[in-house]
Amino acid sequence: EIAGVSALDKGEGQDFPRDGLVWYEDAMELAEAPDIDLVVELIGGSEGIAKKLIEASIAGGKHVVTANKALIAHHGADLATKAEAAGVVLAFEAAVAGGIPIVKALREGLAANRFSQVFGILNGTCNYILTEMRQTGRDFGEVLAEAQALGFAEADPSFDVDGVDAAHKLAILTSLAFGVEMDFDAIHMEGIRHVSALDIQFADELGYRIKLLGITRLTDQGIEQRVHPCMVPQGTPISNVEGVFNAVVVEGDFVETTIYEGKGAGAGPTASAVVADIADIARGRDARVFSVPTDKLEPHKHLPMNAHAGYYYVRLMVLDRPGAFADIAGVLRDNKVSMEAILQRGRAPGEAVPVVLTTHETDEAAMSATLDAIAKLNTVVETPRMIRIEAFD
Amino acid sequence: EIAGVSALDKGEGQDFPRDGLVWYEDAMELAEAPDIDLVVELIGGSEGIAKKLIEASIAGGKHVVTANKALIAHHGADLATKAEAAGVVLAFEAAVAGGIPIVKALREGLAANRFSQVFGILNGTCNYILTEMRQTGRDFGEVLAEAQALGFAEADPSFDVDGVDAAHKLAILTSLAFGVEMDFDAIHMEGIRHVSALDIQFADELGYRIKLLGITRLTDQGIEQRVHPCMVPQGTPISNVEGVFNAVVVEGDFVETTIYEGKGAGAGPTASAVVADIADIARGRDARVFSVPTDKLEPHKHLPMNAHAGYYYVRLMVLDRPGAFADIAGVLRDNKVSMEAILQRGRAPGEAVPVVLTTHETDEAAMSATLDAIAKLNTVVETPRMIRIEAFD
Repeated sequence: EIAGVSALDKGEGQDFPRDGLVWYEDAMELAEAPDIDLVVELIGGSEGIAKKLIEASIAGGKHVVTANKALIAHHGADLATKAEAAGVVLAFEAAVAGGIPIVKALREGLAANRFSQVFGILNGTCNYILTEMRQTGRDFGEVLAEAQALGFAEADPSFDVDGVDAAHKLAILTSLAFGVEMDFDAIHMEGIRHVSALDIQFADELGYRIKLLGITRLTDQGIEQRVHPCMVPQGTPISNVEGVFNAVVVEGDFVETTIYEGKGAGAGPTASAVVADIADIARGRDARVFSVPTDKLEPHKHLPMNAHAGYYYVRLMVLDRPGAFADIAGVLRDNKVSMEAILQRGRAPGEAVPVVLTTHETDEAAMSATLDAIAKLNTVVETPRMIRIEAFD
Repeated sequence: EIAGVSALDKGEGQDFPRDGLVWYEDAMELAEAPDIDLVVELIGGSEGIAKKLIEASIAGGKHVVTANKALIAHHGADLATKAEAAGVVLAFEAAVAGGIPIVKALREGLAANRFSQVFGILNGTCNYILTEMRQTGRDFGEVLAEAQALGFAEADPSFDVDGVDAAHKLAILTSLAFGVEMDFDAIHMEGIRHVSALDIQFADELGYRIKLLGITRLTDQGIEQRVHPCMVPQGTPISNVEGVFNAVVVEGDFVETTIYEGKGAGAGPTASAVVADIADIARGRDARVFSVPTDKLEPHKHLPMNAHAGYYYVRLMVLDRPGAFADIAGVLRDNKVSMEAILQRGRAPGEAVPVVLTTHETDEAAMSATLDAIAKLNTVVETPRMIRIEAFD
């Protein structure tokens, strides 16, 4: 039973029938109302009123359902501890991958498994932009402007296109999958602003598609968490996820690979997840917020990005003159980076042409040093662009 | 805590450590053992010992977890009623799509939605055979024999290749999705024995892939349940599910389309689902067996297959002589079937050549009459083969 409602702007959501609902001028009063058992927070933002409302609701002995990924990513463990102490549930299915019940899958449906990695397309705006770029051949800026005009991207798109939103979701998935404390700051984060139409063309030629992935992986040295554009092989399930769809791939020791796909945002999918959480609470089907009691969450042992090893695609703009290839090859040799292929597109003697190289398995540290050195070559005229190749083999 | 174990053959599963476990010569004794709270049934078969064991376990006040799709499809409602009366849980996540937590998704994660349809690839053996046929160009019999040799298909493959196994799972999905009584006998069932290498080639040319789908759909006239080979457009998520993988597509009014993919069989995925059910029971997270109490399941109003309308692919072997096309076109006209395309592959005057036709939207009844009439034409030399085209638009 919906008991009351509050919003900054009373005019918002006029199409929702409010007859018989109590209107609260101040949302904080919801946290104290004696006839309210459960508060749904759909305000957003990691600080401010959303955080205050949730804290007050928990303190007031009320269950909380939220779709607020930023808040959970930054304060989830603290809020979960408070909820445990107060004997209430803190639920946030809607915070990760919209309507896809991935929190429930990790915490309950796949509870028998130890997970080795979880990765996916966690931001629909970026996936929409990358899909449009590939299908139309247009560049990032143009497609972003169109997405903003259509309402698929915010006026300030940085949370989406710089990977922050995907990283919020990844931090939550990491905690759920590995039973560790959240560590948002440990996430290596790169967005899609530097992905060019040229990169998308080269990806296609090389048999890849470019996707912004969030990846969390358990290694012997620690947990690797990263959000960045990836080249994924064409034909793999993740490569086929297009437009505003999200997809999460979970690898467990018993279940092996399972994949979850659906719309990652929007009123309908968010409502679906919020109401599922409410139903679970109403039926007493509560689970631990992060699979284990918060004091049993293990410290997050972080694998720094410099220790990552993988395959790389690098695109350079190189002056088409004798010796240019030799200079680049020399830098690679000096940094012990083993090249898989190098290819030049077109000829324009004395002018800049795109040159693409792909590597065998290489350390991130060596790759960084290589890119720095290549950038200093006087035959290389623009900042080198690097995209990691993920084969998931 | 595992308290005891029983099997027909004591030698089975020797690699599982049994120290400290009580061995039961007669599985039925598990149902009566006072120190047992929960019985896991992994025997299989819709009748016989599996059914007796589950009935006795419920009567003995024990929770039951089973992977037995045939048993649930045929006796699920009856067993659920008994479980409700006894105050125990009957759980069967492993019965549908192996390790994919689709039962939990439908019953809990997507609880906010009214579903319009659920469909998917529900049998890994068939999907493996169809994938192999497409990738190697070989015919059904040859690939089946190989699958049997490799252990991917049973010595008696009929449950898999005739669609029975997929239909068991579909009956369960129907009940879960629509809150209706199960009606296994209402399922229209066709297997993949008649899918030829030629059909797979034509599908490819026409922009489709052939998949054995289970489809359950709510229509104004009733629920349509069917298992049969389908042509699905290349590039759609379901068309990209290959090999032994299963996938279930769920359409809900709020969440819209979500997709769940993973291995549908095997020891690991089955164990994953069984242990998830055990964990739910241990934590008191029980749900209604079929989303609602069994006495609230609505009668199943069944849409007969004759009332189905859709798009059709028909392959004929036709004597290459003047007038053959006209005869076929005449039959279609007489049955008011509107053709989308007709194409002949190759020329061999006086001999049989494959002819393929596709239709606009057509009633199943008209299509049946058309196929009967075409079969009688003396220019048509083999049984016409029909595959339904599903665009899911």
